[in-house]
Amino acid sequence: MKANAKQTKPSPHVQKKRRKRREEILHAALRAFRIKGYHATTLDDIADHLGVRKTALYHYFPDKETILYECHRESLGEIKRLLTEAQELESATERLAHVIREHVRVMTDTLEGSPLAFEVPALSGRRQSQVIAARDRYERELRQIIDDGIKKKEFRQVDSKLAAFAILGAINWIARWYQPEGPLQGAELGSQFADYLVGGLSCR
Amino acid sequence: MKANAKQTKPSPHVQKKRRKRREEILHAALRAFRIKGYHATTLDDIADHLGVRKTALYHYFPDKETILYECHRESLGEIKRLLTEAQELESATERLAHVIREHVRVMTDTLEGSPLAFEVPALSGRRQSQVIAARDRYERELRQIIDDGIKKKEFRQVDSKLAAFAILGAINWIARWYQPEGPLQGAELGSQFADYLVGGLSCR
Repeated sequence: MKANAKQTKPSPHVQKKRRKRREEILHAALRAFRIKGYHATTLDDIADHLGVRKTALYHYFPDKETILYECHRESLGEIKRLLTEAQELESATERLAHVIREHVRVMTDTLEGSPLAFEVPALSGRRQSQVIAARDRYERELRQIIDDGIKKKEFRQVDSKLAAFAILGAINWIARWYQPEGPLQGAELGSQFADYLVGGLSCR
Repeated sequence: MKANAKQTKPSPHVQKKRRKRREEILHAALRAFRIKGYHATTLDDIADHLGVRKTALYHYFPDKETILYECHRESLGEIKRLLTEAQELESATERLAHVIREHVRVMTDTLEGSPLAFEVPALSGRRQSQVIAARDRYERELRQIIDDGIKKKEFRQVDSKLAAFAILGAINWIARWYQPEGPLQGAELGSQFADYLVGGLSCR
């Protein structure tokens, strides 16, 4: 019984170390996915990025698909957070700009330019449904901000569904051209995208 | 000699019939790619869409990759044409709106919403380089139109490279959500995208 308790509850220090390691694995995986694509990436590639053997990964994740799923969860968690932050802002203009700016930062910093949005079909049934449901919720909230801006006459009369898809396309496509080592950093890219994509809706 | 001449030059009627059949195969392939994705699509799937046997396709294309390549060539040919048309227009605003409108139409009508831009890595070396070179030329011409608009004070001072990538992302992403059977048709979608994406650059 004592041994069992020990096994289920590691010390805070060990827990912290494990959390850190887990994050390092996810980030090594994101880098590998960006460079080789998800399908071509092996667990050996991910281990290579960390300078460890493949077997070391099995303490944290049973397989590559679980790693992909956890990367999605991390990114969707950040999306949820940025939507909550946006709700604190007064105008639809500010809310939309915040969402665009922060979503770009998730793409460039959290995901390191990895094309996660393109890899949803690689997830198995239940996990795929979960990710799609979270993505659909995000799309609806984005449309809601745009509709609200139209109602309050901050934005022109547009089809909010199309505008939301155009915004998501512009942001998701970043994975196709972004170079983490390049001169353009996430914050600057986010500001310029927000400026352009909110600008197209504004009543000026 | 006579037989040889006959073999190398079919009658105009036969030529026309072959061209038509060739186009039908490309369009059946695009539909299949949209529904199942390029990698999961087999030559049997493409033949099924046409109601013929797989062997009938071999008279036209040796393999699936060649079909993908020819779909790219068809779409790049249209892009080239729409850029030539745009050059006839007076202002950068009109040129950019034309390019966006017509590129959206290529996505929805010529490509039937098929995610061709996502399948470039599936092409073999020489073909992949050709398609990437053509795509790079297109990106440069798009930037050129935006830079011209900035110079002529039609557009605000923006990073034309980022704006071009945002536009291409919005358009390429259409393949991820467009339903050819849905209520929204290509022309209407193209107009709304042009309105939104040119609007974000305009000095109003």
